Amino acid sequence: MRRLARRKQILVIGFGKDHCPELAYRTAYSLGLEIAKRGAVLLTGGLGGIMEAASHGAKDGGGFVVGIIPQDDKRAANDFCDVVIATGLGFARDFLTAYSADAIIIVGGGVGTMIEISAAYQKNIPIIALRGTGGVADRYADTYLDDRKVERIMGETTPEKAVIMALAAADAS
Amino acid sequence: MRRLARRKQILVIGFGKDHCPELAYRTAYSLGLEIAKRGAVLLTGGLGGIMEAASHGAKDGGGFVVGIIPQDDKRAANDFCDVVIATGLGFARDFLTAYSADAIIIVGGGVGTMIEISAAYQKNIPIIALRGTGGVADRYADTYLDDRKVERIMGETTPEKAVIMALAAADAS
Amino acid sequence: MRRLARRKQILVIGFGKDHCPELAYRTAYSLGLEIAKRGAVLLTGGLGGIMEAASHGAKDGGGFVVGIIPQDDKRAANDFCDVVIATGLGFARDFLTAYSADAIIIVGGGVGTMIEISAAYQKNIPIIALRGTGGVADRYADTYLDDRKVERIMGETTPEKAVIMALAAADAS
Amino acid sequence: MRRLARRKQILVIGFGKDHCPELAYRTAYSLGLEIAKRGAVLLTGGLGGIMEAASHGAKDGGGFVVGIIPQDDKRAANDFCDVVIATGLGFARDFLTAYSADAIIIVGGGVGTMIEISAAYQKNIPIIALRGTGGVADRYADTYLDDRKVERIMGETTPEKAVIMALAAADAS
Repeated sequence: MRRLARRKQILVIGFGKDHCPELAYRTAYSLGLEIAKRGAVLLTGGLGGIMEAASHGAKDGGGFVVGIIPQDDKRAANDFCDVVIATGLGFARDFLTAYSADAIIIVGGGVGTMIEISAAYQKNIPIIALRGTGGVADRYADTYLDDRKVERIMGETTPEKAVIMALAAADAS
Repeated sequence: MRRLARRKQILVIGFGKDHCPELAYRTAYSLGLEIAKRGAVLLTGGLGGIMEAASHGAKDGGGFVVGIIPQDDKRAANDFCDVVIATGLGFARDFLTAYSADAIIIVGGGVGTMIEISAAYQKNIPIIALRGTGGVADRYADTYLDDRKVERIMGETTPEKAVIMALAAADAS
Repeated sequence: MRRLARRKQILVIGFGKDHCPELAYRTAYSLGLEIAKRGAVLLTGGLGGIMEAASHGAKDGGGFVVGIIPQDDKRAANDFCDVVIATGLGFARDFLTAYSADAIIIVGGGVGTMIEISAAYQKNIPIIALRGTGGVADRYADTYLDDRKVERIMGETTPEKAVIMALAAADAS
Repeated sequence: MRRLARRKQILVIGFGKDHCPELAYRTAYSLGLEIAKRGAVLLTGGLGGIMEAASHGAKDGGGFVVGIIPQDDKRAANDFCDVVIATGLGFARDFLTAYSADAIIIVGGGVGTMIEISAAYQKNIPIIALRGTGGVADRYADTYLDDRKVERIMGETTPEKAVIMALAAADAS
């Protein structure tokens, strides 16, 4: 038996399509492009907002995109997924996106993003928050989610630095 | 067809058994007792710490307790459950406890508690944080989980007040 | 710590509301009545057809009913549930109903029923098929679901006998 | 917005590693090879037996493999996955594999396989059973899973024919 050198799976999460400021959208696009350029697989929740922006960037960069959606019908995914995982679980799919990630990058984000980073945190999956993108990303950059644990959520300032940090953290964990 | 006057289902969440200070444990016991006394059904995650303490109190008060556990084997539940729901879903069961609640009361709590209140928040289920019990309960009492929404997490100071508030909020929603 | 003598949880499954012949409906009502009379808790999937019929019977018999529904909104449950567990998982809730049962009784049933008995079978939960009610119940009464395992699905001919058998099997397992 | 021409996602299911006859294993390997040759993505449950055999074949054919595992830890997957989805849901992951498939091919199989084809059946996802591989595949080839529905489970005799049929059925649905 031979062990395939599996490419790193980087999850990008954050604002959904109902509230996704232009700056956050452009930042997520750049993140997707960087992830593709560096040979990692992009994971997202497969829908709009940050998920779509990152996926668009990754496809423009020649990368590979997996969208893990809440619905049971693959057609609910955005247009930039190479593979669609249809869960039929509603928001409980947030656990799957988290558990499937080798590292996570946050762009803004609201309550749903809190769930994903909390699930990832319980499993010691590295989390990088992109500073200046608002929401959860700014609130938790460089802070601890839980006073009783020592892991930090790491803050980074540019998409390139965030992807480099995510890949390094994924290798180390 | 006749509509059964279903009793309110109050979920108590917070510290697990690995980190449950004595004060929080005693407070949860009192909460369970109050919930029983006022005729509501107690829901919990069915395991140790706050979940067990509240269940113990509810049984001592003659109440009814439902434990919704992460495991697929009912025997993993604590000793104070009248009904055990074995989910086999791991921590994704946090969505079920949240969705099944008519109102939620928080006693302390860490990352898992964040997931449950975030899931409840997305569905506008009322949340009451018991002040002075530490962790998530104190961090979020009287604040907003999400800047873009108007609902508050309500802070209360005693088990009795928290249960009265929970039942009133459950009736109103 | 004292171990509560938890009442047995008997799951009744079968035809949904879209295809539930009158005979099967009446049989399920009688099953619910018997389950209540013998002091067990009735579990169902919380919706129409066999689920509603058994729940109606159990309430008329003074019993206790827990409905575990696919939806994330408790209001989707039928009118005869004392406790509603809202899963938000779609049909994946079939695993939870199965895992939460101490024994299962089948009345008719289609593809969804196949999923529930398959999940229960994997965990060695006793299954009793009510003969003469059609569908899955008749196809699998007294046969093996899986050639490589020795457990049988037991066939019974009346609601009373099926409940007696279910309670005996639950005690033995 | 541009719609990506997503490659078809073909799910191969059947015997697990505890009971996987040599013939079934070799057949699944050939299936994986054919799926790769014809440019489709292989989906599997990510573990041993038929899942591993098909994945090995697909990698030898230069294809792309996604493994969707019950565990919450990606390391539980077999060695031939390009992408691993860690669900943490136990066997409830069978719904996700089914919903994510554009078509399904069965090689032998036991109770777990019954769950996956039942879930797929409820969503009208095409199912092809490979004749002569035993278990569920032989029991259900060319028959109906449910008397009240008109869709057939299609039986095919060689891996090549099964993959051609699966891709044609995926296109038509």
